[in-house]
Amino acid sequence: MGKKKKSKKTAGWTGDVADLLRVGPDFDLASFDRGGTPGWDGDKTSAAAFMRKRGDELSDLQERLFADGKSDGTHSVLLLLQGIDTAGKGGIVRHVIGMVDPQGVALASFGVPTAEEASHHHLWRIRKQLPPPGKIGVFDRSHYEQVLVVKVDELEPPDVNATRYDELVDFDHEIVSGGTTLIKVAMMVSHAEQGERLKERLERPDKWWKYNPGDIDVRERWDDYQAAYSEMLTRTSTEEAPWYVIPADRKWYARLAVTELLYGALTDLDLAWPEADFDPKVELERLAETSRA
Amino acid sequence: MGKKKKSKKTAGWTGDVADLLRVGPDFDLASFDRGGTPGWDGDKTSAAAFMRKRGDELSDLQERLFADGKSDGTHSVLLLLQGIDTAGKGGIVRHVIGMVDPQGVALASFGVPTAEEASHHHLWRIRKQLPPPGKIGVFDRSHYEQVLVVKVDELEPPDVNATRYDELVDFDHEIVSGGTTLIKVAMMVSHAEQGERLKERLERPDKWWKYNPGDIDVRERWDDYQAAYSEMLTRTSTEEAPWYVIPADRKWYARLAVTELLYGALTDLDLAWPEADFDPKVELERLAETSRA
Repeated sequence: MGKKKKSKKTAGWTGDVADLLRVGPDFDLASFDRGGTPGWDGDKTSAAAFMRKRGDELSDLQERLFADGKSDGTHSVLLLLQGIDTAGKGGIVRHVIGMVDPQGVALASFGVPTAEEASHHHLWRIRKQLPPPGKIGVFDRSHYEQVLVVKVDELEPPDVNATRYDELVDFDHEIVSGGTTLIKVAMMVSHAEQGERLKERLERPDKWWKYNPGDIDVRERWDDYQAAYSEMLTRTSTEEAPWYVIPADRKWYARLAVTELLYGALTDLDLAWPEADFDPKVELERLAETSRA
Repeated sequence: MGKKKKSKKTAGWTGDVADLLRVGPDFDLASFDRGGTPGWDGDKTSAAAFMRKRGDELSDLQERLFADGKSDGTHSVLLLLQGIDTAGKGGIVRHVIGMVDPQGVALASFGVPTAEEASHHHLWRIRKQLPPPGKIGVFDRSHYEQVLVVKVDELEPPDVNATRYDELVDFDHEIVSGGTTLIKVAMMVSHAEQGERLKERLERPDKWWKYNPGDIDVRERWDDYQAAYSEMLTRTSTEEAPWYVIPADRKWYARLAVTELLYGALTDLDLAWPEADFDPKVELERLAETSRA
């Protein structure tokens, strides 16, 4: 198995995972290998060890972001997750976001709009959930559903829907202009792997609660969804807010790759600990005066 | 140090930690040992191993609660944290709540009320943050601030404040009646240990952001706060919503004890995985028809 050769010491990324997974002008979803592990020079075991290391580093970086937010900083990060049922969005939240302090996370999940939400512009409910400074926001589904389920199920007229791509690009610009690093992630599983995962949900009583008969309806429209994803990815991947496509057939790789994207985004912010807005010496003297020893 | 004797194998709780830490009629805060480790037959090292085990168990129990909530269940859990600055409330969120899936957690932090919040009854902002079914809610400070900072700083007339105890007990009853298991935790550090922790925040530039000169103002009113805590604990610890007082001078013990309280509450719910509201056989057939192999 080569397990010995790929020791913890040498396992790592062979290149910048952001560059490897970013959607550029030549991106072709149909030929994208969903079982691949691009850039990772190691196996599942070495990935687990690497994740623990990155977890500690992420935790530190997240605290710096949080501290910055408490001190009038304007930075935030928004990890936006898209993917068909079973692609592993929930696993990313649990296993990647779960590595950092819950106090620094703002999680939002976007399902079928409520009656109130549906009465507003589709961006209304999204805007309300944008992360405040200092936080790592996570969107489990997002405004991009407007060109996925809304398009596929024709929940609005096609001529209106066709205008959404530009609108979404503009909205991303609004987010980024506000000081938010936007990481747009599309998790892509293969048709076969999705079948296996749905099968598991049906065969295990402890997974039934995750299953919905509508999941099969969506699977039956696989080609329509793939076409919608393809159009979304190529039309809305911009320099300031690129899409990253994650091969998601191997859960461990998907988690490792998203971890790395988040790590890279936080590292790029290059945040120092905030300066004191008090005089530490004076405060230490005040503190000493409270002693009862 | 007896480290060998207290091996991982035998380390554990010698009794029900809920019984040991629950505030009963005879509770006396002044004589409470804040450096103690009641009920724990082990040291910091064995506690860490035990925490990992409990973390896995908590994760499973939390998922059952979440599944129950997705399936029309009405249960939720609310962990309410009170404690003076540096008592370690944030550490509980990070290290205890951080062990479960962020998707199952609803975290709320109550600081100085905003202008809008202050224009309403003090319970208005609290009620909005009560956890929905399926979630573990966490309150970092709570409605109990009304008989802590509000009382000590006389932010409302004493005769009005004196009516709050009954009101808080009634509100707890409202919470519990709605299907929420309420775990009220008061974390108590000693005066000396608080001094050490504030000192550390002042001496380490990476901790400055956690410090506020107001922390010393509060410390100067230590006796007033202790009196307020004492009155709160004895007057609002009820059978349906008891207070648990946690000795917090040893962070590892405080985290271990709160973990155990949460574990006990989730175990007591005794939740089974939800039944399927579909026919798994029929769905497996539908799934098979989507095969492209």
